[in-house]
Amino acid sequence: MLPIMLDLATLKALYAEGKATPLDIIQAVIERRAAWPDKAVFITPVSDETLRSAAETLMAEHPEPNSLPLWGIPFAVKDNIDVAGLPTTAACPAFAYQPAADATVIARLRAAGAIVIGKTNLDQFATGLNGTRSPHGAPRSVFDADYVSGGSSSGSAVTVAAGFATFSLGTDTAGSGRVPAMFNNLVGIKPTPGLLPNTGVIPACKSVDCVTIFAATVGDGVAVRKVAEGFDATDPFSRRATWANLPISSLCVGVLDGAEREFFGNTEVEKLYDSAIENTRALGATIVPFDYAPFRQAAALLYDGPWVAERLAALEDFFASNEADFDPTVRAIIAGAKGKTAVEAFNGKYRLEELRRITEAEWAKADVLLLPTSPTTYTVAEMQADPIRRNSHFGRYTNFVNLLDCAAIAIPAGFDSAGHLPAGVTLVAPAFTDDALAPLADALHRRAASGMGRDKTATLPEASKVPAAPDAFIPIAVVGAHLSGMPLNHELTGPGGRLLRSCRTGADYQLFALPGTVPPKPGMVQQPGFAGAGLEVEIWALPAAAFGQFVARIPAPLGIGKISLDDGSTVSGFLCEAHAVSGAQDITHHGGWRNFIASRT
Amino acid sequence: MLPIMLDLATLKALYAEGKATPLDIIQAVIERRAAWPDKAVFITPVSDETLRSAAETLMAEHPEPNSLPLWGIPFAVKDNIDVAGLPTTAACPAFAYQPAADATVIARLRAAGAIVIGKTNLDQFATGLNGTRSPHGAPRSVFDADYVSGGSSSGSAVTVAAGFATFSLGTDTAGSGRVPAMFNNLVGIKPTPGLLPNTGVIPACKSVDCVTIFAATVGDGVAVRKVAEGFDATDPFSRRATWANLPISSLCVGVLDGAEREFFGNTEVEKLYDSAIENTRALGATIVPFDYAPFRQAAALLYDGPWVAERLAALEDFFASNEADFDPTVRAIIAGAKGKTAVEAFNGKYRLEELRRITEAEWAKADVLLLPTSPTTYTVAEMQADPIRRNSHFGRYTNFVNLLDCAAIAIPAGFDSAGHLPAGVTLVAPAFTDDALAPLADALHRRAASGMGRDKTATLPEASKVPAAPDAFIPIAVVGAHLSGMPLNHELTGPGGRLLRSCRTGADYQLFALPGTVPPKPGMVQQPGFAGAGLEVEIWALPAAAFGQFVARIPAPLGIGKISLDDGSTVSGFLCEAHAVSGAQDITHHGGWRNFIASRT
Repeated sequence: MLPIMLDLATLKALYAEGKATPLDIIQAVIERRAAWPDKAVFITPVSDETLRSAAETLMAEHPEPNSLPLWGIPFAVKDNIDVAGLPTTAACPAFAYQPAADATVIARLRAAGAIVIGKTNLDQFATGLNGTRSPHGAPRSVFDADYVSGGSSSGSAVTVAAGFATFSLGTDTAGSGRVPAMFNNLVGIKPTPGLLPNTGVIPACKSVDCVTIFAATVGDGVAVRKVAEGFDATDPFSRRATWANLPISSLCVGVLDGAEREFFGNTEVEKLYDSAIENTRALGATIVPFDYAPFRQAAALLYDGPWVAERLAALEDFFASNEADFDPTVRAIIAGAKGKTAVEAFNGKYRLEELRRITEAEWAKADVLLLPTSPTTYTVAEMQADPIRRNSHFGRYTNFVNLLDCAAIAIPAGFDSAGHLPAGVTLVAPAFTDDALAPLADALHRRAASGMGRDKTATLPEASKVPAAPDAFIPIAVVGAHLSGMPLNHELTGPGGRLLRSCRTGADYQLFALPGTVPPKPGMVQQPGFAGAGLEVEIWALPAAAFGQFVARIPAPLGIGKISLDDGSTVSGFLCEAHAVSGAQDITHHGGWRNFIASRT
Repeated sequence: MLPIMLDLATLKALYAEGKATPLDIIQAVIERRAAWPDKAVFITPVSDETLRSAAETLMAEHPEPNSLPLWGIPFAVKDNIDVAGLPTTAACPAFAYQPAADATVIARLRAAGAIVIGKTNLDQFATGLNGTRSPHGAPRSVFDADYVSGGSSSGSAVTVAAGFATFSLGTDTAGSGRVPAMFNNLVGIKPTPGLLPNTGVIPACKSVDCVTIFAATVGDGVAVRKVAEGFDATDPFSRRATWANLPISSLCVGVLDGAEREFFGNTEVEKLYDSAIENTRALGATIVPFDYAPFRQAAALLYDGPWVAERLAALEDFFASNEADFDPTVRAIIAGAKGKTAVEAFNGKYRLEELRRITEAEWAKADVLLLPTSPTTYTVAEMQADPIRRNSHFGRYTNFVNLLDCAAIAIPAGFDSAGHLPAGVTLVAPAFTDDALAPLADALHRRAASGMGRDKTATLPEASKVPAAPDAFIPIAVVGAHLSGMPLNHELTGPGGRLLRSCRTGADYQLFALPGTVPPKPGMVQQPGFAGAGLEVEIWALPAAAFGQFVARIPAPLGIGKISLDDGSTVSGFLCEAHAVSGAQDITHHGGWRNFIASRT
């Protein structure tokens, strides 16, 4: 008996234990998607026969279970991403073509053993956040068929939430990889722009488009991202990752405040946002209100500013000849770009840079932003009655993220008080914090205790837990002239060092006053067997490069090694060459350099 | 008797020795500019009276010589930069206005004691590289009044080269801060975009404009830049510097090759370029040919692509009402932006990103590019006869630099074989290498031995010599398991470490085999008085952040301190806590870890 959700950790365990084969899983996928009542999910499903044969081929060529990172893992692909053998349509039948090759991300996922189950429905040309702008109908929330699935990656989200794909690919320009995650109780991994290559993806706004991943858990999504990501020289917007860590030990999380808290009357989503804030606090972060206004203003540029011209640039010849083939709302949006001038494009860029500057003050307050994924939701009928305005509500907290070069992870935040519709929150941080954000996102998801996808009561597998990320700062124990208030303390504070705490070394350290040092410095040496009281040290944290420069400047006979603390832990810290302390004054009994200095004055 | 050139180092020495006062210098400025035959240099000179009074005020308020960084230093300002009290015209009288405040850079320079001597002529709205596009006439090369001064910062360059300003400010979008440096035997400091704020500067192409400095020497230019640079929140394109070092100890300098060597028939400039290459090689750099083609293609975008729309965006209302007031060539260029669409703007951006990608392969070959500043020069008559095409020749090696986010320093390269006209070369490197480039630029300038400005035989003052910049890599001496071929060597090669050399420690080091270490490791300790043969070590170099991470991973009892080498120098390297070697096997007589390992097998 298979679980409702085909999450990655569970499938891998089933495979490892020999309890299921890829063919078994594919058979379940076939049955589940056939049984699913919503027929708008796929544009081009892979046929049952082809699916079975893909599983059989994999098992023949790679018989060892889990011998590839995504061995026998079924996934769905938004129909604006090329999959060789299937047409790419972008939900516009007149635009359909047969791609000659897989998109780079597809090629990587297939090479890792994942099996494509079909191309999914979307807001045409990825222009929308609601999922109703398609000639193939509107996929529905897996929790209520009256409600939108969210878009533009509408069908992709449903395939995972409904339990017939382990993960799926979306794309995200304005929020298309995050909004449907909320409406379907899923995780949406929105990588840093450029981390996943766009080669083989139909552009929406080429300069800000991202391929995204829907998954049941953060751990699943990150595992898939690791396979799909990486530099691709054929995509000019592809970037080599320069990973950024977060200051985990002193994390500040920014939350909406005052008039910027806008839920369009949806008090259920607001309540769930507030409980996500409390969960974040409970996980040890400091909660800080920040001003969302400049982010909101940047968000507005995406549709109201010149960026809509990117949508026309991507399709210019086709739009000129086939305007009538477009969804009316999509057509109106793209046609809006026609009159825009290059001067307007540059003026929009200038405005974005002004706003980026203003947001810097907010990033100085918060390392990470915690936002509602969407402030509210609507039924399909409501959306169709007011398609532009209500769509824009969905993007209120998502539109800015790619323009301002951020990474984001959308996670479930629980269900409304009736247990009916889910809400979600998104963690946002600057470029290349993708890995650094994941442990917090995973921990928050687990605290929400809202299951995975349509399985509201599922327990998140332990195996998909995301381990702690490295801290952006390297801790260092200082003993003498670098202590707070001492003459060299500026070498720590200058490059942005933060004092973590004061504590004592283990009992077997001795302290000596080094003769002739300017400013006066002690030398600390470990003497196994010596039983003292431990010595006062301060633990500071420095950014890695600053730590490197700091170490390189230390004069002999001092150096940096490992110090044992009285709690048994070990930290980088000052050591002294033994020859330098022979004959030096033993000041161990003072208990530390600060006391010794005080004793002399 | 004052020197011909009023370079900063010389003026400071005169002031320090009491041999001149700011008033003396200002008097000389007044006389020299009155005597200078070219009347097209200034648009608005500061009156003699106002100049004298500025010097007197400075001396009254700051009587101590050199008590401010630019105490009593005369400078000229391109007339597209606001100076309170003088009109800003951009060489378009109809556009003139009285600025309410100094541009940020002007305020900083004045606060540092520098004295504005006037607003200088330019190609109207900084649109040109030749200096002839102005209703105020064409400033001429200080070496031959038939020849252009270069532009757009034409008058600014002449003020320094003619000896009536110590430095001057230009602006540089396409090369306007570099081309006139070549034609007037000057240094042109073209900072990383965003390093000097543009608040109070009339935009040409707002997204790529830079304020620049003309000076007699690199040292002078850097000293001025240090005063003017720094983040300014009121300029959305201002950036906080994240200084990048260069790998000084293994520097690769890229030079033009094959068909990309284009001098438009000017063999004199070509010869001087070749001698600059030889000088660079003689300074210890490795010379590598690179492919200039993608840089050339990026360069072409600046005028042929959508960026020209930035020039219209900057002036849109004024251009609409005052087209007739424009210089005909400038008008034609700006009018060319009128038909450009937002789609074209984004397509241009896409093309630039493609080209940036292609140039990455060239940056992998070369740390720094050495290029001709301009491949040739022309007389004013020649330029006016073919003003667009010949202007574009000047920009062949300059136009790409700001689009591709580089720092550049233009330096003199000597005079043609008749000793008549100068040539120049430019060093270009990625953003924020401004300081790292300066020592090489200064050394090359000194090797060119072509004097300063109009004084062809001047010796460059020792006092303006630029000291060596820190290496991008931190050297580290390894002793044991990190040696080449040893089990932990990958911890050096993985993060991009480079082996610099093998050598020996001083005589007083002892080596011990640490018991129970995996992989086996030695411990090295200094024993003052011990007279051994020194121990084999390898000196590796690691990027600073990688060095920090490397140190943080080292387990006790090892650490990083300072090692004395047999040549008397000191380098960061492995140390061992003394307690760990007591009782350990002394293997000093093997002369190094590698020999000891070999002896055991």
